[in-house]
This record gives sequence, structure tokens and C-alpha cells, in this order.
Amino acid sequence: DAGGVESLDYEVIENYAYREEQAQRGKLYMYYSVGVKWFFALLIGIGTGLAAVFINISVENFAGWKYSLTFKIIQSSYFAGFLVYILFNLALVLSSVYIITNFAPAAAGSGIPEIKGYLNGIDTRGILLFRTLIGKIFGSIGSVGGGLALGKEGPLVHTGACIASLLGQGGSTKYHLSSRWLQVFNSERDRRDLVTCGCAAGVAAAFRAPVGGVLFALEEVTSWWRSQLMWRVFFTSAIVAVVVRTAMGWCKSGKCGHFGSGGFIIWDISDGQEDYSFEELLPMAVIGVIGGLLGALFNQLTIYITNWRRNYLHKKGNRVKIIEVCLVSVITSIISFGLPLFRTCTPCPEADPNSGIECPRAPGMYGNYVNFYCGSKKEYNDLATIFFNTQDDAIRNLFSAKTIHEYSAQSLLTFLVMFYALAVVTFGTAVPAGQFVPGIMIGSTYGRLVGMFVVSFYKRLNIEEGTYALLGAASFLGGSMRMTVSLCVIMVEITNNLKLLPLIMLVLLISKAVGDAFNEGLYEEQARLRGIPLLESRPKYQMRSMSAKDACGNQKVVYLPRVAKVADVVSILRSNNHNGFPVIDHARSGETLVIGLMLRSHLLVLLQSKVDFQHSPLPSDLRGSSPPIRHNLSEFVKPISSKGLTIDDIYLTPDDFEMYIDLAPFVNPSPYVVPEDMSLSKVYNLFRQLGLRHIFVVPRASRVLGIITRKDLLIED
Amino acid sequence: DAGGVESLDYEVIENYAYREEQAQRGKLYMYYSVGVKWFFALLIGIGTGLAAVFINISVENFAGWKYSLTFKIIQSSYFAGFLVYILFNLALVLSSVYIITNFAPAAAGSGIPEIKGYLNGIDTRGILLFRTLIGKIFGSIGSVGGGLALGKEGPLVHTGACIASLLGQGGSTKYHLSSRWLQVFNSERDRRDLVTCGCAAGVAAAFRAPVGGVLFALEEVTSWWRSQLMWRVFFTSAIVAVVVRTAMGWCKSGKCGHFGSGGFIIWDISDGQEDYSFEELLPMAVIGVIGGLLGALFNQLTIYITNWRRNYLHKKGNRVKIIEVCLVSVITSIISFGLPLFRTCTPCPEADPNSGIECPRAPGMYGNYVNFYCGSKKEYNDLATIFFNTQDDAIRNLFSAKTIHEYSAQSLLTFLVMFYALAVVTFGTAVPAGQFVPGIMIGSTYGRLVGMFVVSFYKRLNIEEGTYALLGAASFLGGSMRMTVSLCVIMVEITNNLKLLPLIMLVLLISKAVGDAFNEGLYEEQARLRGIPLLESRPKYQMRSMSAKDACGNQKVVYLPRVAKVADVVSILRSNNHNGFPVIDHARSGETLVIGLMLRSHLLVLLQSKVDFQHSPLPSDLRGSSPPIRHNLSEFVKPISSKGLTIDDIYLTPDDFEMYIDLAPFVNPSPYVVPEDMSLSKVYNLFRQLGLRHIFVVPRASRVLGIITRKDLLIED
Ligand SMILES: Nc1ncnc2c1ncn2[C@@H]1O[C@H](COP(=O)(O)OP(=O)(O)OP(=O)(O)O)[C@@H](O)[C@H]1O
Ligand SMILES: Nc1ncnc2c1ncn2[C@@H]1O[C@H](COP(=O)(O)OP(=O)(O)OP(=O)(O)O)[C@@H](O)[C@H]1O
Ligand SMILES: [Mg+2]
Ligand SMILES: [Mg+2]
Repeated sequence: DAGGVESLDYEVIENYAYREEQAQRGKLYMYYSVGVKWFFALLIGIGTGLAAVFINISVENFAGWKYSLTFKIIQSSYFAGFLVYILFNLALVLSSVYIITNFAPAAAGSGIPEIKGYLNGIDTRGILLFRTLIGKIFGSIGSVGGGLALGKEGPLVHTGACIASLLGQGGSTKYHLSSRWLQVFNSERDRRDLVTCGCAAGVAAAFRAPVGGVLFALEEVTSWWRSQLMWRVFFTSAIVAVVVRTAMGWCKSGKCGHFGSGGFIIWDISDGQEDYSFEELLPMAVIGVIGGLLGALFNQLTIYITNWRRNYLHKKGNRVKIIEVCLVSVITSIISFGLPLFRTCTPCPEADPNSGIECPRAPGMYGNYVNFYCGSKKEYNDLATIFFNTQDDAIRNLFSAKTIHEYSAQSLLTFLVMFYALAVVTFGTAVPAGQFVPGIMIGSTYGRLVGMFVVSFYKRLNIEEGTYALLGAASFLGGSMRMTVSLCVIMVEITNNLKLLPLIMLVLLISKAVGDAFNEGLYEEQARLRGIPLLESRPKYQMRSMSAKDACGNQKVVYLPRVAKVADVVSILRSNNHNGFPVIDHARSGETLVIGLMLRSHLLVLLQSKVDFQHSPLPSDLRGSSPPIRHNLSEFVKPISSKGLTIDDIYLTPDDFEMYIDLAPFVNPSPYVVPEDMSLSKVYNLFRQLGLRHIFVVPRASRVLGIITRKDLLIED
Repeated sequence: DAGGVESLDYEVIENYAYREEQAQRGKLYMYYSVGVKWFFALLIGIGTGLAAVFINISVENFAGWKYSLTFKIIQSSYFAGFLVYILFNLALVLSSVYIITNFAPAAAGSGIPEIKGYLNGIDTRGILLFRTLIGKIFGSIGSVGGGLALGKEGPLVHTGACIASLLGQGGSTKYHLSSRWLQVFNSERDRRDLVTCGCAAGVAAAFRAPVGGVLFALEEVTSWWRSQLMWRVFFTSAIVAVVVRTAMGWCKSGKCGHFGSGGFIIWDISDGQEDYSFEELLPMAVIGVIGGLLGALFNQLTIYITNWRRNYLHKKGNRVKIIEVCLVSVITSIISFGLPLFRTCTPCPEADPNSGIECPRAPGMYGNYVNFYCGSKKEYNDLATIFFNTQDDAIRNLFSAKTIHEYSAQSLLTFLVMFYALAVVTFGTAVPAGQFVPGIMIGSTYGRLVGMFVVSFYKRLNIEEGTYALLGAASFLGGSMRMTVSLCVIMVEITNNLKLLPLIMLVLLISKAVGDAFNEGLYEEQARLRGIPLLESRPKYQMRSMSAKDACGNQKVVYLPRVAKVADVVSILRSNNHNGFPVIDHARSGETLVIGLMLRSHLLVLLQSKVDFQHSPLPSDLRGSSPPIRHNLSEFVKPISSKGLTIDDIYLTPDDFEMYIDLAPFVNPSPYVVPEDMSLSKVYNLFRQLGLRHIFVVPRASRVLGIITRKDLLIED
């Protein structure tokens, strides 16, 4: 299989062992497991919140040191400052790419496509390991602190998912951190729920948007959703919000270095435009169209570049990856330092004592109106204000209300073009990288540009360029990621302004529609490039006219007999790489009967442990009482994101080969079956909505033993 | 079947006729139908928004006239005012109950349990008709305007659902308002999606909470959710928000009579408490516990009363229902007017010119600090402020910040007890009635009470009684309705204050947990009382140890042959009231084969139209070419919420009885099947998650024709 991608088994395998275990457990166990689930939700919330705070504090401090050092040096020499700036960035980025290439390769990129795949039923190797978590956290500190054109939001989602998954399997098995007590989640299904919580927690932490986090998990990453899960997911997000809030309160007193001044994306534009007139809807629609076009273009360009990297550049090994990232870092530093040098500065506007905005800001501090390479002390460099600044500050400055005419169209255009190019080039390099913040930067730039035109065209006072910047940001994200409700809610939560909701929706409706005309969303495209075969929620159009039999083609089904000779089992396992086999038995009448489905992974466990081998070729129930269960259910659970056993890991003696094994206690006795002429779209719905891995296509039944209707399912406790 | 409750068929019946129709339709039709869906979403949004505005304007105007008249009269005589007040209320309530009893019986109550049932797959008779819509709108104007202890929010959800459903079937069939052009939604599935949009629109209109509306639909009412639906539902809610906002802007200029001053629940408590200390968590938890207890008690009391009404009182006919409502109205009027008379008034607090709160308010106006039966002009009656007032004003006054010590504990307690009793008694009378507003009133009263104790206990300045009132409201709704995420979001949206989210969550977690220890949520309990058999999202615990065969018991399956004699069909249909029958045919080898499922409703259509009757007992395909389709698919669609055809509606001549009918083109050729020993919990999941009506239990297969895995479903366009 390509790239270590394998399906997950979300179905509960109700074999003999499982039924035994279920029978032993009482109602009390159910309460216990519910309690543990909530406790885990709490832990995921706390863990993700702390990880977010840690990343933010680190990034802000590195960026703070960098800018304050550079600003100090450029007071005497711009060239020395330039060098220091480049080297500082390079060092941070180098540390990040080093961690990724040598320690946690699965932590590169945003991780959202892989998590989306996981929740759709595909396990990508290495994606949820402990080392990936560590790599993600430290890698994104380096890459974001190093000033690359990428964000820390996507990685936080991945971080949350890793934390959740590690908790779900009771710690890291490899680093012996696991605890048996915590291994209550034996089924993939429970783990899936935890990972969903983790994703929501990640978004909630990244944007401090608990409701947005829940909706993001619901709309964008999960493929299955149960309404009971919702409350738990929401709880997790709220815990994140509380943790982050508490940490920020603690940092306010200055204990966290440069952190106090920002780091989290939260722009309170309650000062913004309260009302809008109907003429404004046209420029807003234009923003939507631009967003759709630029977003789709972004997706398309990144597809080309990713393809090229995958097939050519990254094949050459880690050294090339490192060099590539360093090159991108140097180019980014040069552009962001160099371009503002060519801008002539603008005199500061009349100071408005109420606004609290200083112009120019004090050197080495955060804020608006950066004085950079200016002749006079009372001037500011508008390009440096957005380019030579941390991303969060740049966004805040772009969104800022009450600062009409701060930027020149020329600066905004320059920034837009350069940053767009940088974002495209940076995407797909071997560092953790989110696309939210670059998207917001790009979008708010052209949004503000449109806003400037609107202000000068309509010549009315209540139009705020900052509001247009916000709409621009929404439109680019909509055009690239094609998220809808969750993006709306996240935007509302980060700006803390419910009144803009209809406008954001309008813009998103347009940008998504425009983008959809060209290609799929960023995450879907990237998942496809990575060989993650996502199943969409709807069947394809042509499936309506296909039958289940058509989908199987004329495949020759590989069966297993109920009592199989070990040698035969091994040769069957070696001869193909199917992951599930129907097991057949002979009824007394001599007729064959399908008694269930045997998974390859379970077979391998049986072969490895050898305890079920028997000398006789007769089934065990014919030889007496019910078979003893010699296995713990958890032996059959494959650790997440790892390769698991293969047939080559198993060593059998010649004696073993002559033994038999009775599969009946281990098969899944009731896999889902469909009649051969069921239309494929119905089969698809069954497969997708129940999260299956195998469906048996069987001939039409000859009789109906009973009909189940609603009445039959209304069983009282 | 009890009370006209019948299952819906959300499955697509892929019979011959359907396949033919699908084949004729091109890709273009798909775009057309997507376009129509969005257009309908728009219409639903506009319709529900306008309905909400209409109801609000009417209620506010009636209430405004009532109070201004009463206040004018009591300047001279309290007794005359009392009489006018009672009569005014009685007239409004009488009009409401008259409409309900004589014209639209299905419009009584809140409607949410029925809609929940509809979306779970059960059609309650009359629930989505045009007359119900009309009855609901005018009935709730009467009952809310008449001052009963009920709200207009639940009815608005029902209104939205009715509008959606009527659009979905292209108008009202009975009143000849339907248009063929709009009848694109032939399947129950599409209608279900529309009704989901309608519910969200209703909540969005009731609380001006678009996000809350989406989450309410998702969490509380629907049983199936597709992620594509989310964006459409959200769009609908946002349209509602825009419509309501526009209408309110238009009303601000005074064009809507008394409306300008309120009507929508939206309390901006951004003045409220910004921060909370850890000691406050204890009283907040106490509020949660009280909410859980009182909410569960409310549910339990309403169960008893509803049972009594159902089995005894309402059996006596409409006149008793009318008398009952009138009695409740008079009692409500007497209590709300009479009790404040016994309160001694309180001197007005020192006026704070910045707050904009007048004390006492100008007579006949809306606002806080009502001067009622006071000795001096500079006093207010705190009980009248909450009792002798419109509900919206009362809530606003309870939530009001910066008015510490406005209420005495005695007044709040009196109000709590009396209003709780009134709400319990009013619930279940024959008028449209929502439980949100009464719940908020009850909850905010004890919330404020707890807040008062906290203020006097901790003696710190930044504690706001209004914030506690809000938490109380959340706790009561949580304890009674057991909603979680949606309630949180609605609360945040109506108060426009994101900072309270964690507190609201804490309170809801506790109140829901406490309530769950006693009984189920209000809507589930009411659905059960009304005989709506909801399928929960999880299988019952004991289903794990049952098999599909166990659920069928030893039922004798009633089959139909492929070519059946009309007389036989009629006698089969008369002999039982099953709604689906397996159809069997004989293969050439003489073996029997199940060729599909025939629905009773489809059979009845065939019997009525008679065009498919044939003289020969041979199947049509044996006699030549493929059968012509003589039916339009829409003939088979049952109109929503109506009884549909029964066997008694069909008149057949003796000649007809001798004819034959070939069922093959009309059967559903691939109903879902499960092997007999599949555990019932798996069957349940299949049934519930795919929204089925019938499942065939069949013997184990003798062979597997193919295995479908993810790879087989990845078909490229
Ligand atoms: N026991 C079997 N006998 C014959 N064909 C099989 C059998 N199992 C699977 N197949 C077919 O072989 C192909 C690949 O099967 P495989 O089991 O690798 O599934 P997959 O889609 O790759 O998912 P997974 O991630 O589980 O491997 C599919 O077309 C499937 O229909
Ligand atoms: N064709 C049939 N032959 C025998 N038993 C049947 C048949 N169809 C249904 N039953 C059984 O009869 C009982 C009632 O069936 P019915 O068709 O009325 O379903 P229901 O649960 O009431 O739902 P609906 O709302 O569709 O009527 C159920 O226990 C069901 O298993
Ligand atoms: Mg495979
Ligand atoms: Mg029935």
C-alpha cells in the first residue's frame, strides 16, 4: 500500500472474546467508562491549552528578542541589524527543520489533512505518535518564531489530536510511558471520539474560540458525529478557553517576558463599523470573488509545488530539505527587511489622544506605526508596519479601525504579492506549518485595499478599512479552505463582534462558490496528494447506476476455512495483502455457510501467540465445552499510527505449520452484508455512515426470517 | 396505531420507476435542484423572519395597549383597572384557545416534541399543515399577549418547520395553493432537510441567535445530520437575522406602535460582571443544583398533569378545554395584579444620571422600577416590576446590572413560587405554548436570589446580581430541557457576552447531570406521553446480548408473490396493518428468491389507479419488452402529516378482483438486510443512522460474491 496508509476498523468486532468480556462487565463499568471519558476530555483540554500557551509564550519571546535586538542595532547600523535579523531567523528555522527531518518527519506540514484522514478511517503512519507531538510543538516554535510565512494554528490542531490519541491509548507505548490503568479505550471508535475532542481543543486554543472549535471539528475534520459527543467536545473547548485565559491573566503581570503584548489572535474590533449600507454590498461581493480566485489559485499552485517536491526534490533526502528551508528563511528575511527600506516614510497623522495609538511607536515595542528607515522621528514606514513585524501585530494593524489612510495602495500591493509568493513557496517545506495566519494576512491586505477604494469612492465617514480587511481575511480562507460555518464563527469569536456575521457569511458564500468552480478545498487536495483516500460524505453521481456487484468486479474472493491448517493460513496471508477474509464452515447438511469475517491483524496475533494451535482438525465446540478465552481483548488492538505486525514478523517452527487453528471464536460473526444488486450509492452510504472497513456482497436471500421495524427496536429498560 | 402516529420512509425507494426517472435526468438537473434548495432556504429564512416579526409586533402591541390602558385606569380606580386587565387578557386568551380547538388542534403546545419526532422518522397527524401554521401564529399571539405563563419561542420553531414543510411539498395541497413547479422535493429525505432548516430558522428568529439556531437544530431536534446541510441551515438562520434586523430598524422610527421598545429577547448585559473569583464558583454550582432539581420537578409535575388531562379532562371535549384555559387566564390575571397590591413599596434608589434608568418609570411605559399601588411618587413596587409587566421586560429587569438591592428576597420568592405553579398549570392547555420564557423567568428569579445572598455575603463590589440571574436562567433550562451546547450559545448570543461562556457551561453541566438523575428531558418526556416513539441515538444496553432474530420474535412474515391476484392483495392488506411486505419470486431452478420490499402505501396507489392490472398471471418481462411506466413518481409520495390512502378508500369491481398485478417494477429491490444472528445493537445502529423503516432479517449467506472495501468505493468522476 502506498505510503503506509491503511484503513482503520471503527466497527466493533463482536467475536466470542468480546461477548465474554461484555458479559462480565456490569452497569457499573459503564458509569466508570463514562467518567473516564469526561476525565479525559478534561485532560485533553488542559493539555492542549497548556501546549498552546507554551508555544505562544516561546514564539512571542523569540520574536520579541529578535525585534528588540534588531531595532537596537539598526539605530547604529542597518547592515549589522540586517545580518543579525537574518541569522536569528535562520537559527530558529534551522532548529525547527532539524527536529522535523531527524526526529519527527510526520510533524511536517499542518497535519490537518492527516487528522481528517484519521477521522475518516485512514491511519497515516506516525501521525499520532509521541515524537510527532514533541516535534510539532518545538518545530512550530522554531518555524513561526523564525518569521516564515506560516502560522501555528494548524499545528495546534494536530497537537490537540496527538494529546488526545496518546491519552486514548494510555500513554506512549514506545517510550514506556503507558499505564495499563488508563487503557480503557480498546476500540478505535472511542479513540476517534477522543481525537475529535482534541481537534476542537486545538482550534479553540489557537483562536480562543470555543464554539468555533466545536464547529470546526464538526464541519471540517470529523466524518462521523454523534450528538452525545457534542457536549463533551464543547466541554473540552471550554476547558481550553479557561486554561488559556488563566495563563494569560497570570502573564499580564509581566512574568512571561515579551508575551503580555499578544500572541493569540484576538482582535477586538468592536470599534469597527456597526452598520453597513446597501451600496457597500457590491465591494464586499467583490472581496468575495477575489478571495475565491486567489484562494483557488493558492490551492492550485501548492498542488504543483507539492507534486514537484514530492517527486523530485524531497526524494534526495534530508539534507536537501534542510537546505531548502534555510533558503526560504533567508529569502523571507531579506524581503521583509529589505523591501521596507525602499519605501519613503509617511508623516504621522494628527495624534488623537483618545485612541491610545502612538505614532511612531516606541522603538523595540509592539504596536502600530513602525518607524523604520525614516528621515524624521515623526514619520512611519507603512510597509514595515505590516512586513517587518510579528504576524499577529501585522494582522492587528491591518484590522485596526480608526486609522484610515494609514497604508498606501502601493505598499499593500507590494506586500500582497510578496507575501502570497512566500506563502506558496513555504507551504510544503519540512517544517510544521499552518495556513490560517498566512491566509488572514493575504486576505486582509486585499480587503483593506478594497476598503481604501470604498472610502475614497463613497466618501462617507462610517466606513472602516479594518472591517474590509476582516472580510478579506474571511474571503481568502473561504476560498482556499472552503470552510463555512466554523470559519464564520471563528471570525466572529476572534473579533468579538456578532454584528458582522451576515457580512462574513455573504463573503464566504461567494468565495466558496467561486473557489469550488476551480478545485477542491486545500485540505482535500493535500490529502489526495499525500495518498490519503478520503471518502466524501456523498456518493459519486455515477454510483447511482452501478450495483454492489459492479464494484467488486470479478474479484476472486479469498476464503479461510473455519479450522485452518497453520501452513495454509500463512500461505494465504503471504499470497495477497487483503486485510479481511470471509470464513466458511460446512453445515450438517453439507451446505457451506459464511460464519464471519477474520481480520488479517487478528490472524497475525493468533499466529504469533500460538496458544490457540491445536492438533486436531476438528472445531473445538465439537470436542466438548465452550472454548476458553486465552487472550485479553487489548492484545488485538493495533497501536495507533504504527505499522503493526506483518507476516514477516512471525516465526513459526515446522511443527507449528502442521498444527490447526479454529477461527470461530475470533471471527466477527456478523459483518454487514448487502445483496449483490443493491445500488452502489446505497452501499456507499452504508459504508461511509457506519464507518466500515469491509462489506460482504452476497446473493439474494431465499427467504425472510423476520422484519425489523421501529416497534421492534423500542425496548424498554 | 395509536394517535395517528406512523413512520416515515426516509429511504430512497430505488424501484424501476425511480431508476428510469434518474436515468432521464442529466447533470443539469442536479444543479437545478441544488439551486432550488438554496432558494428554498432563502424563502424559509424570509418567511420565518417575517412570521417572527409579525408575532412580536402583535404581541407587543396588544400588551402595550393592555398595560397603558390599565395604568391609565388605575390612576382613578384600582378595581376598574383590575377588571379591564382581566377582561383584556381573557379576550386574547379566548381567541387563542378558540382558534386551536376549532380550527387547528395540532397547533396546541410547543410543537417541538412533534417536530423532533418528525425528524426522527415519525409523522404525527396534522403537525405540518397549513392550518396548523396559521393556528400557531395567531394562537400564540393570543396566548402570549394574554399574559399566560408561556412563551412564543417554541411555537416559532414549529412555525419555521411548517413553513419549510409547506414549501417542500410545493404549497398546501388542501387549500389548492400548491404549485407543481415547486414540487421538486419528492423524497421525504429532502423534506427532512428543509424542516431542519425551518427549525433552525425558528430558533434564530426567536432569540435572534443564528449560531444558536443551527446548534439547536443540530443538537436538539434532528436525528440525522449531513455536513452539507450545515451551511444551508446556517444560511437560513443568517437570513432570519438579517430580516429581523431590517424589520426592527424599520420599526425604530415608531411605525410599529408599541413595538420599538422590545419584544425580542435580547439583553445586552455587557455591563455585567467581567470577572469572577474562585469563591463565586460555589454559589454558581448551587445555582446549577437548584436548576437541576427544579427542572426535573417541573418535568415530573408536567408529566402528571399531562397524563391527567389526557386521560380525563380533555376527553370531555372542546368546551372543557376552553373553560380550562379561561380559568387559567383569570387566575393568572388575578395573581399578577393582586399580589403586588400586598407589597409595600420601596423608596427609589439614588438616581445615577449615567445609567439612564428612571425610577419610577413614567406611567404606562416600559422599563424598570414600576410605580404600582405606592404611597409616594418616588417609590416603586418590586413585585409589580417583575409580575405586572410583559415577560420580556420582567426578564430584562431581572437581568439588569447595576441595580443591586432592587428586589427584596420576599418578592422574589413569592414570584418564584407563584410563577412556577402557574407555568406548571398552564403547560399542556390547549394553546400554543413555549417553555423557554417561563423557564428563563423562573431560573432568573432564583438566580437573582442567590446573587443577592452572594452580594451580601462576600461584600465585594464587582458582583452583579444580573449575572447570577442569567446563570439561573441557564440552569433551569438545562435542568428541564437538558440542552447543552445550543443553550450555551443561545445564552451567549442573547446576552452578547462571550466572557460568560465558561460559567454558563459549568452551571449547565451540573444542572443537566442533576436533572438526568431523575428523569428525561422535557421534550423526550412529552414525546413519550404523546405516543411518539423516538429512537434514541444509542442502542439500549440489553440490545448487546440480543440478536436480530430475537427482536422479530416468532413473527410469521406476510409475503406477497411477484404476480399477485388483486383479490389476494386486498385480503392481505385487510388482514393486517403491516406497512411493508417482502415480495418473493421463483427462480428458474424452482428456488424462491426475495426480490424486494413492497410498501403498503405504494400498493394502495396501484390498487387505486388500476392501470397496472393485467389479465395474465405471468410477469410482464416474460411476455415481451420492458414494462412501460404509467406512473409519475410523485403519485407515490404521501402528503406530509396526513393520513394518506387506506384500504377502505379503494373501490374495486368484482372484475378487478380477478385481475393480476405484477409488483416487480414497484418493489424496492434492495432493502437493507442483516443476518439473523447480528447483535441487535448493530442492527439498531444501522436502522437509526440510516433512517430506515424496514430491515429484513435473513439467514446466513452460503457464499460471498465479493468484498467491498474503501478501494472499491474510490471511483473518480
Ligand atoms: N478476502 C478477499 N478476497 C478477495 N478480494 C478481496 C478480499 N479482501 C479485499 N479484497 C479486494 O481487494 C482490494 C484491496 O483490498 P484491501 O483489503 O487491501 O482493502 P483496502 O481498500 O486497501 O483497505 P485496507 O486499508 O483495509 O487495506 C479491494 O478491491 C477489495 O475488494
Ligand atoms: N410483512 C410482515 N410480516 C410479518 N410481520 C411484520 C411484517 N411487517 C412488519 N411486521 C412486524 O409487525 C410489527 C408492526 O409492524 P408495522 O409494519 O406496523 O411497523 P411499525 O413499527 O408500527 O412502524 P410503521 O410506522 O411503519 O407502521 C413489527 O413487530 C414488525 O416486526
Ligand atoms: Mg489495502
Ligand atoms: Mg405500524
